[in-house]
Amino acid sequence: MVLITLTTDFGSLYPAALRAVILQINESANIIDITHSIPPGDIRAGAFALYSFVEYFPKGTVHVAVVDPGVGTRRRPIAISAGGQYFVGPDNGLLIPAARKLGQMEIYDIMNQKLLCNLSSTFHGRDIFAPVGAYLSGGMQLEDVGNKIDDFVDMDSEKAEIYDNTIKGEVIFIDDFGNIITNIPKDMILKIADLGTVLYVSGNKMPFLRTYGMVGIGDLLALIGSHCFLEISVNQGNASRVLKIKNHDTVTVRPLEKRIR
Amino acid sequence: MVLITLTTDFGSLYPAALRAVILQINESANIIDITHSIPPGDIRAGAFALYSFVEYFPKGTVHVAVVDPGVGTRRRPIAISAGGQYFVGPDNGLLIPAARKLGQMEIYDIMNQKLLCNLSSTFHGRDIFAPVGAYLSGGMQLEDVGNKIDDFVDMDSEKAEIYDNTIKGEVIFIDDFGNIITNIPKDMILKIADLGTVLYVSGNKMPFLRTYGMVGIGDLLALIGSHCFLEISVNQGNASRVLKIKNHDTVTVRPLEKRIR
Amino acid sequence: MVLITLTTDFGSLYPAALRAVILQINESANIIDITHSIPPGDIRAGAFALYSFVEYFPKGTVHVAVVDPGVGTRRRPIAISAGGQYFVGPDNGLLIPAARKLGQMEIYDIMNQKLLCNLSSTFHGRDIFAPVGAYLSGGMQLEDVGNKIDDFVDMDSEKAEIYDNTIKGEVIFIDDFGNIITNIPKDMILKIADLGTVLYVSGNKMPFLRTYGMVGIGDLLALIGSHCFLEISVNQGNASRVLKIKNHDTVTVRPLEKRIR
Repeated sequence: MVLITLTTDFGSLYPAALRAVILQINESANIIDITHSIPPGDIRAGAFALYSFVEYFPKGTVHVAVVDPGVGTRRRPIAISAGGQYFVGPDNGLLIPAARKLGQMEIYDIMNQKLLCNLSSTFHGRDIFAPVGAYLSGGMQLEDVGNKIDDFVDMDSEKAEIYDNTIKGEVIFIDDFGNIITNIPKDMILKIADLGTVLYVSGNKMPFLRTYGMVGIGDLLALIGSHCFLEISVNQGNASRVLKIKNHDTVTVRPLEKRIR
Repeated sequence: MVLITLTTDFGSLYPAALRAVILQINESANIIDITHSIPPGDIRAGAFALYSFVEYFPKGTVHVAVVDPGVGTRRRPIAISAGGQYFVGPDNGLLIPAARKLGQMEIYDIMNQKLLCNLSSTFHGRDIFAPVGAYLSGGMQLEDVGNKIDDFVDMDSEKAEIYDNTIKGEVIFIDDFGNIITNIPKDMILKIADLGTVLYVSGNKMPFLRTYGMVGIGDLLALIGSHCFLEISVNQGNASRVLKIKNHDTVTVRPLEKRIR
Repeated sequence: MVLITLTTDFGSLYPAALRAVILQINESANIIDITHSIPPGDIRAGAFALYSFVEYFPKGTVHVAVVDPGVGTRRRPIAISAGGQYFVGPDNGLLIPAARKLGQMEIYDIMNQKLLCNLSSTFHGRDIFAPVGAYLSGGMQLEDVGNKIDDFVDMDSEKAEIYDNTIKGEVIFIDDFGNIITNIPKDMILKIADLGTVLYVSGNKMPFLRTYGMVGIGDLLALIGSHCFLEISVNQGNASRVLKIKNHDTVTVRPLEKRIR
């Protein structure tokens, strides 16, 4: 039984069309949802969702991802192989962080005309990405979808930067608890602060701790989240709402006391 | 592996009861969600959701649909066969557009007393529709559920109408992007306008184009959606919110310049 | 094919990590969602969701439930066997009502070090509960997870109480229709009122009827819901919003006329 995952900004209804098309082609596919709640058109948030847990999926998994504001324009449909898993979606940067996390990527432009007939202008999820995902799950070779390419779209991902004692980063995802996930990796934050110290995050003072329940209910804290990035949270509350920080905002992080090491 | 789909206005939790009941009866059923986010009690929106992609499902699929404000009253439970697929739900019009789209319908009133024991007054999804769907997926014949009927409830569906150069239609669904889907079919709109012309939709001027990305971010457009109906959208925005148009509203559509043909 | 259910307050995205981990361990597991929409950290609401339909699941089902505000603190991870089904989650009361509903419980503290390696501080759903659920679904014995315990956390569940002609109860769940589900069982309400009589519920007058459609659209009613608890509803409306009653609120219920029996 081959696993096919779905990551979209569709909300409800449209994912069912993907499922129907996939099961028409490969009735033994096991389809599971990563999320259909990406903010509409937010390619970076979709890329993070796909990236965040991709290494937990078994080899052979096919990921179909559709956050595709450019549907029906000249952006290309692509398919990728990396680390034994497959990715199908638009060439707008959505698939790259997840695929790159798994290792060396082979990227193909979907050009096989048999895969591009009956194309609508507004729903390539149904008309290209789901069918190609289903065919790959059924054994079609990646070479058969089209031509290998190198000039894929890679988002100019803001990397977090460290100056002296201050890190400048970016919010890359707000989860459904309102936790603020930044692009500041574990290694970088540990350069300027130890667990137990106090941080200023965009002017807000909070302890840097191991887990939520170590502060009072409603209190702020910073921690290394389950994705290994710095996360800003409110214990049993909604940090995004409390701090009025939203996705793609800039965050600065510095320790209360300069570290002596 | 037989496919059973679920279409409800339940939100979360109650769908799990349907899944449990189905798997108790047919453990090899492959259950997939069409949507559980139909606005509460909105039979027309539920009918559209079930209708919109029904032809993409494989033969043998059983669709269980429950948008059922009349649960526990005299409305009948029914099961339908059409085009090799099956439908189970309340006799309130919900199932008819989807079944009719697939071809000739055979409609049965669910009267077999073995299927009607242990009946609550408020959750026929769990007590009738899910079990009957599971039995049909396991090979029960439609004749065994009850008596064939002709006097089923058919919604007085407003058909879009064309007068001179103006179409009067109705909104039949607002999707999670805020796209406004009307009941104006592709054929009808193409009688008064070509792609590339300008339309007035309920007083709002917008181009009639092939896809979202052909206008600027935040701009209005009209297009033929993936369901083959006229759709009003804002590129990377929420048309329903911008135009304050909601489900079941009337829309009028006319071209800026009368067509000469 | 073994059934594994998921009940969480995760919203979207994080449930996918549970699914990935489970399918890595037992690729034939059939994973179904009970809900991922529990209000964040609301253990009682999660307990009710798991409890409400648990008896409809087949023997052998493994329920993984994670509403876990104490993640990473000293609260223990536990696994339970009851009535032929299994439960895995935090020792915070979440699993107990559902397990107890099925019969005699055997409760184990998860202490097997092989199950506790690679532990994050914030995502035990992924790191403990999902893997243990997957191993149990694949045949691991409950004795192998750790030690049997008796001192599990049991929520001090407010039981509804009846004084003379008045019941004092509590709201235990607001469903997605806005129906207000109380902890007043069918037996108790039938002691003070018959179907057809009028009730005062926290000062609001409403008939006690069999089903929603027996009052006008927008009208209040009380009924015995599909979970066999007293439920306050508005026909085709949202009772929680109309009455401004929310989860965990106290409700008092008395009949308009004292019953003569």
